[in-house]
Amino acid sequence: MKTLFHYNWQVREDWYMWCEDVPLEELLKERTGGVGGILHTLFHIADVEWSWIRAMQGKPDFQESFEGYRSLEKVRRLDAGFKPEVQAFVNAWNDSMEHQLMEEIGDERFTRGEIMRHMIAHEIHHIGQLSVWAREIGKEPVTANFIRRGLGAIIG
Amino acid sequence: MKTLFHYNWQVREDWYMWCEDVPLEELLKERTGGVGGILHTLFHIADVEWSWIRAMQGKPDFQESFEGYRSLEKVRRLDAGFKPEVQAFVNAWNDSMEHQLMEEIGDERFTRGEIMRHMIAHEIHHIGQLSVWAREIGKEPVTANFIRRGLGAIIG
Repeated sequence: MKTLFHYNWQVREDWYMWCEDVPLEELLKERTGGVGGILHTLFHIADVEWSWIRAMQGKPDFQESFEGYRSLEKVRRLDAGFKPEVQAFVNAWNDSMEHQLMEEIGDERFTRGEIMRHMIAHEIHHIGQLSVWAREIGKEPVTANFIRRGLGAIIG
Repeated sequence: MKTLFHYNWQVREDWYMWCEDVPLEELLKERTGGVGGILHTLFHIADVEWSWIRAMQGKPDFQESFEGYRSLEKVRRLDAGFKPEVQAFVNAWNDSMEHQLMEEIGDERFTRGEIMRHMIAHEIHHIGQLSVWAREIGKEPVTANFIRRGLGAIIG
């Protein structure tokens, strides 16, 4: 499970680098599907990941909107600020946490194992959307391959 | 790990049902990104999943192209034909297989654990592309949520 988080973090970093060569106007442009834009998607991914990590710890989540983060640098800085807490949580993960129930959200209760998988799938899904938009602006997307990333060695 | 396969199979089935209400012309239409179309993507997902399952067993993989499968019914039937072998392999998965090396592919060697994650990410990524194309034709995509699918109970 942890390895899929490492995969997502690597892919996200690759997308930030990919964005460096794209005009801000294209990164901010409203597009069809998902949350409606490239940079907004990267913001959303970091926001949702951190918010679930916070929720699993019973802490308040991130409440700001994309409006305050409309540059590559701002989104990267926000993400970098979240990362240590996210990484600490994921790296401390062990199988005994799978079936631990979280506090109620609305009238729903999820296990931590469900939420971890939800987070993994959430990011990969949104990255798939970026790959379509990349082609729309005529640029090759970041590879989504899990293999050939040196992740075999840290599997767990 | 297994649960993410169950998630993918559920989501894929949801997409097949979603396709029932979409004209074949839209399902076949050439689109930007990925493998270039909705039905072709579903064919590609089933093809790639089965091919890796075959490769991990040292068996020959699927070699046919999408050209022979240009209807929803044909893709579904192909997928249904692959499914028993795929499910048997995934359901028999255990952690001791993680670091087992596969036979060389070209001059590369992968562990089975790497390939299983590669397969999971591959499908979710392509489904993200479908979600953009769904919006392009004005239809709500299938939800990508892992939660609220009853998958908490079978986590492993």
